[in-house]
Amino acid sequence: MIASCPVVALAGGVGGAKLAVGLAAALPPGALTVIVNTADDLTLHGLHISPDLDTVMYNLAGLSDSGQGWGIKADTTGALDLLGRYGGPTWFRLGDIDMATHIRRTQRLSEGARLTEVTAELCSALNIQARVLPMTDSPVATRVMTPGGELEFQDYFVARGTRPHVTGVRFQGADSAEATPEVFNALREAKTIVYCPSNPIVSLGPILAIKGIREGLREKLHRPRVGVSPIIGGAALRGPAAEMLKSLGHDVSALGAAEILREYLDAFVIDEEDAHLLASFEHSGIRARAAQSVMSDLSSKKRLAQEVLDFAENIRGQASTG
Amino acid sequence: MIASCPVVALAGGVGGAKLAVGLAAALPPGALTVIVNTADDLTLHGLHISPDLDTVMYNLAGLSDSGQGWGIKADTTGALDLLGRYGGPTWFRLGDIDMATHIRRTQRLSEGARLTEVTAELCSALNIQARVLPMTDSPVATRVMTPGGELEFQDYFVARGTRPHVTGVRFQGADSAEATPEVFNALREAKTIVYCPSNPIVSLGPILAIKGIREGLREKLHRPRVGVSPIIGGAALRGPAAEMLKSLGHDVSALGAAEILREYLDAFVIDEEDAHLLASFEHSGIRARAAQSVMSDLSSKKRLAQEVLDFAENIRGQASTG
Repeated sequence: MIASCPVVALAGGVGGAKLAVGLAAALPPGALTVIVNTADDLTLHGLHISPDLDTVMYNLAGLSDSGQGWGIKADTTGALDLLGRYGGPTWFRLGDIDMATHIRRTQRLSEGARLTEVTAELCSALNIQARVLPMTDSPVATRVMTPGGELEFQDYFVARGTRPHVTGVRFQGADSAEATPEVFNALREAKTIVYCPSNPIVSLGPILAIKGIREGLREKLHRPRVGVSPIIGGAALRGPAAEMLKSLGHDVSALGAAEILREYLDAFVIDEEDAHLLASFEHSGIRARAAQSVMSDLSSKKRLAQEVLDFAENIRGQASTG
Repeated sequence: MIASCPVVALAGGVGGAKLAVGLAAALPPGALTVIVNTADDLTLHGLHISPDLDTVMYNLAGLSDSGQGWGIKADTTGALDLLGRYGGPTWFRLGDIDMATHIRRTQRLSEGARLTEVTAELCSALNIQARVLPMTDSPVATRVMTPGGELEFQDYFVARGTRPHVTGVRFQGADSAEATPEVFNALREAKTIVYCPSNPIVSLGPILAIKGIREGLREKLHRPRVGVSPIIGGAALRGPAAEMLKSLGHDVSALGAAEILREYLDAFVIDEEDAHLLASFEHSGIRARAAQSVMSDLSSKKRLAQEVLDFAENIRGQASTG
């Protein structure tokens, strides 16, 4: 297992956070770095909200609501209700305890701290062993093209419940954004790269759009790059990945998801339910393995993480003997 | 009763808020304007907190915790606990629902709204009929001199529990602060002025230190100015008024409190328990009346308000016939 350390995982929201928990449990303390999408970030009520960072943090800290996967367990919404009474928007469901994270982040950013630094402080306070890095400290915003016009990501995702038909996606600010020194170092030192089962278009897509990350992950070093499919049996466990793949002309399958990541990928873990696709993977030149990939509890998260790391060792072994 | 309208009441925290509730109940809708101390305001967690405005608002809206008098009924402190874990200060007890008020105020101020405008918005959202006005939109900060050095007001009041000996008080920024147009208009139109039973030094003191308010309230127009004693039987119902009067060389009594307000005052309502002081009041030339002045429920708040307004009518009658 030590050969696979340090590990860098790329993650979006809930699915990514779950595998991050599994990886943290499977790896030695300090071995895991999670690079997280921030193109979903938004400002509401004057507060800087980083939904994917929060989901990853809360999951790693054991604070998350395991039912919905985001937010804090048993949190209430009294503040949001009163903010609504004051005329503020309530479609983005901020919890009362959760509010502390947004308040603290906003305060520290306004004091001049970088998002990377603030995230490290929050994680340290929550006793998180893994390193959680925002993909960039620069503002990047996912914009979703629909027949009715371009939408902010959270407007599409939460306010409109992913109902609009998606005709395109762009990452505003990605061209001028740069990977942070922390992200550069993590990628340089990484012995294994993991793509969590996050939406390849709007969760991993923005991360791979950042200069420095994109190039770093394209390089075929002796460093296995293993992904996990967010698509099982032609559907996503949560979120709009399936509809999005379809409307953007991709195959709605584990293979379709892998194809999007192709130039950054050595191998892909798919669900047992999709084992019939293994031949197609072989045909398309992407190594694949089938495994139980639904993560319902800590042991299934850890088991999937172990599977990913074993796969990486297997590839590393072949590379060194091949 | 109509003769007493419009009424302007000056208020600090809990005692002031209680009489404001009584006045609002006793007067026709829209007749009451409350000018509130903002020299206790502070910034914590990057949020602009106006404790006295909040106490007056929450009481007028029927949201307040009737036990402690400030904050929102049955509120929890999950956000504050997490802010504490993040390294933020927790000595100032912000409630979860309460947090919405600070978040909204901070947002609107950062957008360029004046504190007066923000307060009007919050009150309107809370269906408050009375007009609640911050004493000024300029920053004014009460500083408390102690043998150990000068302290910020909330540091003295909350963090140190009013334990330090007070050798002096100053209102930083008061010299350059100005009354708002809204305060000017309210004072110009007022037919009755009421000084709520708030600390005369650190609650009413800052309001009376503001240019425009001070001069306006010194004028002896045909407009009764009636105060209510915050001191009953040589003690304050809450807060450090008694200790402060003593250490600053005032008589610790209803008369001592009235003397501080003397140049702004025509008459003073004292508690029945202090009826023996009526002769001293007569001797010192301040009209006084004894009444039940402990406000435990709505009916006692309204009864005291009625007493104050009756006293004002009485003075008005004497002035017009005198």
